[in-house]
Amino acid sequence: MKYSVKFAGVAIALTSFAALSSDSTTASSHGIAYPTGWQNWSTIAVSHRTDNNTIRTILGNDIAVKAARSGKTNPWPNGAIIGKVVWKDTNLKDWKTATAPGKFVHAEFMFKDSSKYSKTYNWGWARWVGLEQKPFQKGMQVCTTCHTPVKNRDWVFTDPALLP
Amino acid sequence: MKYSVKFAGVAIALTSFAALSSDSTTASSHGIAYPTGWQNWSTIAVSHRTDNNTIRTILGNDIAVKAARSGKTNPWPNGAIIGKVVWKDTNLKDWKTATAPGKFVHAEFMFKDSSKYSKTYNWGWARWVGLEQKPFQKGMQVCTTCHTPVKNRDWVFTDPALLP
Repeated sequence: MKYSVKFAGVAIALTSFAALSSDSTTASSHGIAYPTGWQNWSTIAVSHRTDNNTIRTILGNDIAVKAARSGKTNPWPNGAIIGKVVWKDTNLKDWKTATAPGKFVHAEFMFKDSSKYSKTYNWGWARWVGLEQKPFQKGMQVCTTCHTPVKNRDWVFTDPALLP
Repeated sequence: MKYSVKFAGVAIALTSFAALSSDSTTASSHGIAYPTGWQNWSTIAVSHRTDNNTIRTILGNDIAVKAARSGKTNPWPNGAIIGKVVWKDTNLKDWKTATAPGKFVHAEFMFKDSSKYSKTYNWGWARWVGLEQKPFQKGMQVCTTCHTPVKNRDWVFTDPALLP
């Protein structure tokens, strides 16, 4: 991402380190705007699903990470965004017993807002599919149906990983 | 996230927050200072090792993440720090076929500096064990022995995960 600013006749280049192909021009999913910059969010946990052979990292925006690391996750605070980034399994060429990220599947997000999303259990649910980040539009109930087993955990499967 | 701005020949560094329990008072490992703030670094990849039942995230400092996302990893640039954060496997209570982070094992790091660490293949190798982050002091050769299969990949196992 590059910004350039003209200031008192001097050109200033402000460059962040992440070169992102997806940005604020990416279309919304379920009416929710694309959470630009999630690729640089901090880690909440990781997971590996053997039922569909995918490996994941679970990231959060600043509000979510702060909540995760202070144990304030039932309920998660308003403003928290949790992102799950999903890849198909592959095996590491040089360490055969290690599963690593292969094909990128999708990035999916839960947006906590107890007024805006009161009808969907206080979360907005969205997903962007593939490296092209095509918005998922099949409806939030696809997400909430799957998350029903954790309705007493504020609808979140993830336990924040222990960190020093 | 770090931004650097060059303005009239002056470099200004702006650094975002980090709330950390381990800090610059943590003792060094193999003479290498503790990389304060790694808990908020961005993701390079994840992995799951079935030979020792551990699940991992691989993080990087700004230089490493920029290199990873632009494919400039053989060699990795000087200043890059790659961190591997390791947990024992556990199963997610509400999704039995998902492996998730259990007990925290250690965080280990590779510090690229081709002049400082020329005798250990241009990397400094360090590890801090357990939530108490006790410095590993058994010698860098413990690390380099294990990494020998990837000496032609600049000694790094990780392939950066594909991201949009």
